[in-house]
Amino acid sequence: MSPTAGKPITCKAAVAWEASKPLSLETVEVAPPKAGEVRVKITWTGLCHTDYYTLSGNDPEGAFPAILGHEGAGIVESVGEGVTEFKEGQSVILLYTAECKQCKFCKSGKTNLCQSIRAYTGRGVMPDETKRFTCKGKELFHFMGTSTFSQYTVVSQYSLVAVDDRAPQEKTCLLGCGITTGYGAATKTAKVEEGSTVAVFGIGCVGLAVLEGAVHSKASRIIAIDLNDEKEAWAKKFGATDFINPSKLPKDKKIVDHLVELTDGGLDYTFDCTGNVKVMRDALEACHKGWGVSTIIGVAAAGQEISTRPFQLVTGRKWQGSAFGGVKGKTDLPGIIEKYMNKQFKIDEYITHHVKLDDINKGFDYMKSGDCIRCVTDMS
Amino acid sequence: MSPTAGKPITCKAAVAWEASKPLSLETVEVAPPKAGEVRVKITWTGLCHTDYYTLSGNDPEGAFPAILGHEGAGIVESVGEGVTEFKEGQSVILLYTAECKQCKFCKSGKTNLCQSIRAYTGRGVMPDETKRFTCKGKELFHFMGTSTFSQYTVVSQYSLVAVDDRAPQEKTCLLGCGITTGYGAATKTAKVEEGSTVAVFGIGCVGLAVLEGAVHSKASRIIAIDLNDEKEAWAKKFGATDFINPSKLPKDKKIVDHLVELTDGGLDYTFDCTGNVKVMRDALEACHKGWGVSTIIGVAAAGQEISTRPFQLVTGRKWQGSAFGGVKGKTDLPGIIEKYMNKQFKIDEYITHHVKLDDINKGFDYMKSGDCIRCVTDMS
Repeated sequence: MSPTAGKPITCKAAVAWEASKPLSLETVEVAPPKAGEVRVKITWTGLCHTDYYTLSGNDPEGAFPAILGHEGAGIVESVGEGVTEFKEGQSVILLYTAECKQCKFCKSGKTNLCQSIRAYTGRGVMPDETKRFTCKGKELFHFMGTSTFSQYTVVSQYSLVAVDDRAPQEKTCLLGCGITTGYGAATKTAKVEEGSTVAVFGIGCVGLAVLEGAVHSKASRIIAIDLNDEKEAWAKKFGATDFINPSKLPKDKKIVDHLVELTDGGLDYTFDCTGNVKVMRDALEACHKGWGVSTIIGVAAAGQEISTRPFQLVTGRKWQGSAFGGVKGKTDLPGIIEKYMNKQFKIDEYITHHVKLDDINKGFDYMKSGDCIRCVTDMS
Repeated sequence: MSPTAGKPITCKAAVAWEASKPLSLETVEVAPPKAGEVRVKITWTGLCHTDYYTLSGNDPEGAFPAILGHEGAGIVESVGEGVTEFKEGQSVILLYTAECKQCKFCKSGKTNLCQSIRAYTGRGVMPDETKRFTCKGKELFHFMGTSTFSQYTVVSQYSLVAVDDRAPQEKTCLLGCGITTGYGAATKTAKVEEGSTVAVFGIGCVGLAVLEGAVHSKASRIIAIDLNDEKEAWAKKFGATDFINPSKLPKDKKIVDHLVELTDGGLDYTFDCTGNVKVMRDALEACHKGWGVSTIIGVAAAGQEISTRPFQLVTGRKWQGSAFGGVKGKTDLPGIIEKYMNKQFKIDEYITHHVKLDDINKGFDYMKSGDCIRCVTDMS
C-alpha cells in the first residue's frame, strides 16, 4: 500500500481562483479518496479549449476557485473503500465522460453519456457533495470530475480507465479528450462508410482526429476546411484529400455551394469542429439531399443557437451531435491504446508543444496561437 | 386499346386560376401521354393541406393557373411510347414522390427521394418542359407531377404505381400522401422500436398515421398532443395511450418539461405533424438525452426556420425529417395495400367527409374545420 494512502497529500497545482485570470501555481492539499473514489498521481495533462473556455468565465457551469484540466493520464496512488477495479500503481486515463456500466444510459446501448455522477461533476463536487482540494484554507471546486491540473487528484471510480502501462502517458493523456472525440465522432457517432465523402470544418486537434477517423473508415474523399492556410499541410498529413480556405473563395461563392458543386450534390458526412453556430449550419446544408449526416462536435458559446430551414431535414439530411466521440471510456479506450501501440493510430503527431506545470499559462498562449495542435504539460 | 388513346380527352377539372381564389370547375382538354408518360382516369382524390397551402399563394413553388391535387387513385386510360410497366385498365395510385429505380437517389438505398423528374414536377411541367392541360385557350401548370383534381391527368411513368385492383380506390387514394407519410415516418424513417416511448404533435391524418405506425412497431407508450380536445377520442381510437392538450397545462408548465417528467427523461421518438417551427423545437427538446430522435414531417411556411441550442444535439438527440414517410411508392405501396386488404392497416377510419368534384371547395372548408380528418372527392 502506498505510504500516503489514507492521508492528505500536499502537492503543486494550477489553481483558477477566478474567471479571466491566469492560473496560479499553488501548493494544495488533496484529501484521501472516500468510498468509491480513486486518488491519482497525474503525470501528464493536455490543455484543451474547454479548460480555457471555463477559465474565461463564459461557461455557465464554471465554478471558482477550481482546479481545471480534464485531459490527463497518471498512476493510481490509492483507492477508497469498496473500490475493486483499481489498484495502486496502475496506469490510468481520466474520463470526463464517466462510465459506470450500471445506469440507464450505460445500459441503453445507445449512448456513452453515463449519467451516474453527471449532476455532481457538473457542479464541481464529488458524489457526496464535498470537495477534496484545499488551498490557503479554502476548498477548491473540482472540474468535469477530473481536475488534472494538479499533481494529485481525486476522482470517482467511474471517471478513469486502467490502460496498458507500456503506453507512454505523455502521449496517452490526449486520449482523455480531443483525439478520442474527433476519431469517435467519425467512427462511432457518424459511422462513416467506405467510399463516402466527408467534410471537416475546423482543423485543430479534434478536426485532425476526425480526418484520421475518416481515413480509417476508408472514405473516398475527405475535405478539410479551415480559415488558416497553415492547416493545409496538417490536414494533408492526416489524410485529407482536399483543403479549402473559405476566405479565399471568390466573393460570390459561398462555401456550401462550393462544396455541393465539388461533390455532385453534397457530402455524405460533415463535421463541425469549430463551435461556431454559423459553421454548424453550413456543415448541415453542405450535406447531400436524401442522406447526408452532419455531426456537431464543437462547443458553442452559451446562449448561441443553431438554425436552418426545416426543409433541409425533411429532404433527408440528419443533424446530430457527438460528445467524447460517442466513446465509452472504460469499454473503448484500451482498444484505441492497443491500436496506438501497434502503430495503427496517431497520437504523437498531434503534439506540437510541451510545457512544465510551472509554465502552464504559457501553454494556453501556445494553444491560442495558430501553430499549436496540442500542448502537453509535464506535471512532475 | 382505349378508344380515346392517342387523342385529347375533354373532361371536368377543378382549376386554380390564381392564388387565394376558390378552385373553379372547368372543362379542360387533356393531351395524350407522350413518351414515358401515362394518362390516368382519376376516380377518387383526397384533399391535403399541401394543396390548400399552394392555393393560398404561400408556396414559393406554386405556379398558376394550375390543376392541383396529389392524393389520387384511378385507372390507366392509355400509355405513351415506350411505357411497358403499365397498361390500360390497371388500378393505380399516383405518386408525388416518384420512383424511377435508376437515379443516384433511388439506387442509394438510403432515401425515397427520387430526383429523376423532380426538377420538372417542381416547376409544374412534364419532363419535356411542356404541359398536357389546356382550358379556355390557356395551358395549365401541372402540380407535384400528379394533378389529381382533374378527371383525367397525365403523369410520368415514374409517378404512379399499379396496385391490387380489388382494393377500393375511394380508400386507397389516401395512400398517395397523408396516411403513408405518417405511417412511414414512424416505421421507416424513425424505425420506432418495440417497447419505446413516442410522442406525436398534431393529430390530423398524418399524426393519426404516426400513431398507427407506433402501434405496429409495438411502442410501449404513445402520447398524442393536440390543442383540440376533440382529437383525444381520435388519438385513443388509433392507439394513443395518453392525450395532452398543452393549452390545458398549468400556466407555469411547459409541454417539454411535462413530457420529460412523464417519461423519466424524455421520449425515445417524437414527431412533428404541425408544420409549426416552435412545435418542431419542442418535439426535439422533449427527446431523451443520449438517444431521442425527433422527426419533422409537417411542412413549415416559406422562410420559417427551426432553431435550438446545439447542446441538445451534442448530448445525443438527433433531428431529422421525413418526406412521404421514407416510403418508395412502387416498392412499398403494394405491401401496404395488402395489409389493408388483410385488415391489418387502417384507411377507412380516416375518412370523415365525402364530396363530389363539383363541391371540391366545400371539401376545403371541411378540411379547415376541426372535425375533418380526411375528405375524399368523388371524381365521377
